[in-house]
Formats: sequence, structure tokens, C-alpha cells
Amino acid sequence: MSEKVNIKQLALELNISIATVSKALNDSYEISLKTKNRVWDLAKQLNYTPNPAASNLRSNKTKTIAVILPCVANNFFSLAIKGIEEIARKYGFHVLIYQTHEDCEMEISFINSLLNGRVDGILTSVSSSEDNADYYENLVKKVPLVFFDRVYENLDTFKVTTDDYHISYQATSHLIECGCKKLAYLYGLENLPAGKARFSGFKDAIDANGLTISDDFIVKYSDDENTNLEHIKVLLNHHKPDALFSSIEEFVIPSYTACKELRLEIPKDIKILSFSNLATAKLLNPSLTTITQPAFEIGNEAAKCLFKILTKRGIDDDKSIILKSELIKRASTGC
Amino acid sequence: MSEKVNIKQLALELNISIATVSKALNDSYEISLKTKNRVWDLAKQLNYTPNPAASNLRSNKTKTIAVILPCVANNFFSLAIKGIEEIARKYGFHVLIYQTHEDCEMEISFINSLLNGRVDGILTSVSSSEDNADYYENLVKKVPLVFFDRVYENLDTFKVTTDDYHISYQATSHLIECGCKKLAYLYGLENLPAGKARFSGFKDAIDANGLTISDDFIVKYSDDENTNLEHIKVLLNHHKPDALFSSIEEFVIPSYTACKELRLEIPKDIKILSFSNLATAKLLNPSLTTITQPAFEIGNEAAKCLFKILTKRGIDDDKSIILKSELIKRASTGC
Repeated sequence: MSEKVNIKQLALELNISIATVSKALNDSYEISLKTKNRVWDLAKQLNYTPNPAASNLRSNKTKTIAVILPCVANNFFSLAIKGIEEIARKYGFHVLIYQTHEDCEMEISFINSLLNGRVDGILTSVSSSEDNADYYENLVKKVPLVFFDRVYENLDTFKVTTDDYHISYQATSHLIECGCKKLAYLYGLENLPAGKARFSGFKDAIDANGLTISDDFIVKYSDDENTNLEHIKVLLNHHKPDALFSSIEEFVIPSYTACKELRLEIPKDIKILSFSNLATAKLLNPSLTTITQPAFEIGNEAAKCLFKILTKRGIDDDKSIILKSELIKRASTGC
Repeated sequence: MSEKVNIKQLALELNISIATVSKALNDSYEISLKTKNRVWDLAKQLNYTPNPAASNLRSNKTKTIAVILPCVANNFFSLAIKGIEEIARKYGFHVLIYQTHEDCEMEISFINSLLNGRVDGILTSVSSSEDNADYYENLVKKVPLVFFDRVYENLDTFKVTTDDYHISYQATSHLIECGCKKLAYLYGLENLPAGKARFSGFKDAIDANGLTISDDFIVKYSDDENTNLEHIKVLLNHHKPDALFSSIEEFVIPSYTACKELRLEIPKDIKILSFSNLATAKLLNPSLTTITQPAFEIGNEAAKCLFKILTKRGIDDDKSIILKSELIKRASTGC
């Protein structure tokens, strides 16, 4: 039988539930030996195998990896998780997700709780609230760990990131080509390399075009939604920028809301672009110009790296992987 | 010292990292006894306690609960998780998240992997792909388990749901009051009580108003995005409904996209409303009328129920909790 047999087919064939088959295959005490024998016999007969790709992973006991990230309510991260799950599934691994909400205390406490063998490996996109580089420097020596998107540099493990500097430079140049001269910057992730690179790309494009930016034109991210809205309204009211460059998706809703409340027309009165994987970007009023990160691919690539460590194959490959983001021009920059 | 002391303050006071304090408090082998003693002494002196609410939970070893749900890339579920985390945090528990992607085989396999004490309790919103009631009937006898939103009825545990029937009836009546006579239904969750209740509410409002609906006016959800888009386009092209009632958020983007591609103007040519917690609903073009479920509250309430079981307090309370959804009228129904 050349076709791959799955657990559902075994259940159907034996006229028992999928749950029973699953438990029998796992040698659960809940299942009678008689039933187990029926399941095992058929599984053998039909050449059922839990997962061929998993054969190198016998030493990994939990068949589980953890993804630790700031927040799942963000299209970038939910897509990245999908990319991770696709690879994990090939190896027959489960994927646990844990949200840190940028709280480094929670982050460390949770990771510590995993260290006694509760998972075989960790994928993480670190909190922006504090610099935990020392903690991670120690951690990568103890547990298979791969960073994606939000990374610490100079650590001896795989890191998957995007070309934040270049795409920010390119997007800023697009705003300037559309005629913007007074660009404001909505600043996120300022403690992290990604945040710094995004701002540098913006700043360098401003400088290269003979423009300037003062501190009044920079709004820093707050984890309180209303504060972000108020700060953007103050920026728009007092300083009248002609463009908002949003470095994280979380600024999109307050930016649009502020313009609506102040009756500013996008893109006539102000142009907006944002780093964002928002699924509704093209349906917004007006549709939003985005810097779209290859979120699924980042997760996918990071998971591949983790399985390189777990299978001990390819661990000498280049450890710094940089994928390309894309500038998608839509109505909010209107040119 | 009356103020609550946290781990960060201990770290600051001792001039060591939060990670070290955390490990010392957990009696980690990585920390020297000298450092542990410094941490423990100060913790005692400042009356630091890991978490007062957790005092009834000493028998729960993992201090972890699992949330098992179809998909985090959905505003309803990401808000529900926030509601769960708020309660878990009060008890000093971590929250693991697991996505089933409507795959009941994955769902069962993962839950089985948790049964050997990897978590203290489970919150779940079940897959819609198959009826697993028998499996869960057995499971609730073995592990503290609470259902939210997508539930099986008649199981002996807490269930937190919303008033799907009534809000669907009300929303359908709103479309009819706006002049719609040829209403189409975008059908999700058809294997689950929530899906059936939503459709019944719709159908009964149609009947009560002397209207009819044929099978041609019903599009059933496919997990392939393009299929949903194509089906909606066929519906709009061939049957020319004057309203789309979308029973799940996943239909919003294909509905708007189909109208855009077919140059149908919302709400003039067709009115749209959807069950949705989409954060961008009010910023869409046009803004979307939604049935908004109290997602955060559902998660919050479900977590409270789980801690009733874990703390053995309030387990005789009513086990069926029904919260109210809200119809938020916006431009897409235009009246």
C-alpha cells in the first residue's frame, strides 16, 4: 500500500473512534490490550507510521516546541506561527504558543518553567520592554533556541530577520517622491535591533533628501491604546506633518482614527504607511500602503533552523538569515 | 511594607538580574546558595509573595493552563485569550495556547499529550470539523475542563457561550427593516450548536417576516480562502441577493473583495453584516455592521470557571453561562 495511511483511516477501518486509535497508538492505559492489538496489527499491516520525517528525532521526548512571542493578536505573528506549524507538522511535533505581552518577567519565568524538558526546543521573538541579552546568551547554551524577527545580535544561534533598514529607507523615499516634506515617525520596538534599524532607514532617507526631523515629529509607542491615539492627535494638531511613517502595525488603527476625528483626509491632507501584515489593509478607507514582512516565511525558516538543531543536520549553516519585506503601495500614500 | 513587592524590585534592590531572582526563588541549581540566600532573605524581609491568590492552588503543580482553540488569527479568539490571561495572571498561572486549525485529530492528539499532568486545566473552543462529543464526555471526568464559545451541550462541566440565536434574529430583523428582501446566508460552524443557533435565528426572522430562503442563497464555509471568494461571487452574480448575513468573521474579507471585484456598491447594491470582533471593522470601506461577541468577557468568565474547579470553590454554581452579544450598526447596512 503506497498511499500514506492516517489515523482517521485506521479508525474508520476498525470502526472505533479516532481518539481510541490515537490512545492505542500511544499505548494508553485507558485502552484494553485487545483493542490495542487490533490497532497495532492494522497499523502494521497498512504500514502506518506516525511520521516518517520524525525518524531522526527519537531523542526528543516531548515532540513539542514552544513559540514565545509578544502577542498573537497581530497579523505578523499569527502568520509566522502558521509558518512554524507547517514545519512542525512535517516532523510530527506540536506547537505551543505563549504570549509575553512585552513583559520580560513573564517571559523569563515561562522559559524557566520549560527548561526541565517540557519542550524540545524554543522559537522566540523577544519582548521589547527590556534588554535581556545576557539572559539569552546563557539560555542558548542550554536549549535549542532560534530567534525570529525580534532578535538579540551576537548570540550563537540561528536568527531569522528581515531587511528592516533597507525597506524603511525605500518606503521613506516613496513618501518623499509623493511630495511629503514634513514626515513624522511612529516609533515602536525602540529597544530592539529591528526598531533601531527601521528608524535608521527612515532617518537616513530623510537626510539623503535634505530634509530634517525634530523630536516633536516622533511618537513613541505606548501599550495603552488611548495614549497612542492622543499622542498622534497632538502630533497632527500641533505639528501638521504631511506623512505618518508607522513602524509597527499597532499604530494603524489609532492613526486612521485620529485622522477621522480631526477630519483630515488621507492621502490629500496626510499620507500614511505602516509596517503591517493586516489582512484588511486593502479594504480600509482608504486602502493602506504597507511594508509587508514575509511573516509566514520567517516562521517557516525559523522552524527549519530549529529542526536543524534538533536533528543535528545543517547546524554549521549560516546562522543569520535575512528575508526581504515588500512595499505595497496603496491609496493611503496616493501616488 | 504594605505595597506589593514584585520580582523586579527585588532584582533592583539586590543589583542582580530579574532572571537570577526568578531562578533563585525557584531554587534553581544554576544559582549559588549565597545568591539564593540573599534573594530569599530580602524576599522575606519585604514580605514578597509570588502570588496571594495562588494560595488555594498548592496541589496544582504545573501552574499552567492550556487554551485549545481553532485559530489565533481571529479577533474573537485573540480577545478571548486576553480575558483568560487576565484571570490566570491573578492566580500566578501561565497560559499555553494551542491551535487545532479545525483538525480534530490534532486536537485529540494534543489533549492526550497533556493528560500526564503537563497542565492543571484546559479551556477549549472545539473544532467544527467533526463531532467529538463522546471524546469530551470522557475527558471532562479526568481533567478540569471548561468550554467557551464552541461547546458540546449536555456535558457535565462549565460552558460559556453567547446568545447566538437571539442576536442573529435581531440582526436579520435589522436587515429586513433596512428594506432587504433577498437575504443570503454565509454559513460557518454548521456542525456546532453555535452555528446551528445562528442559522436558526436567521431563518426564524426570515419566516416571521413572510420571506423565504432557498439553498442557493446559502454559502457554506470552506477552509480555502479562494473557494469562499468564488462561492460568494457566484452567489452575487447568479442570485443577486440584497443582503449578506455572514455568520463568521472569516467571510468578511471575501465578501468585501467579491463586491469590489463585481463593482457592487455596499450598502446601495448590497448590505453586509457579520459576526465579527474585527478591530478594523469601523475603518473598512464602508464601515462594517457587526454582531460583536463579548470576546474578552467570554474568556474571562471561562477562566473564572476553570479556577472554580481548580480551587474547588463554586463548583456547584450554574454551569451554563450565556453572555450577550451586541449588534453594532454601521455603514455597510446603511440605515
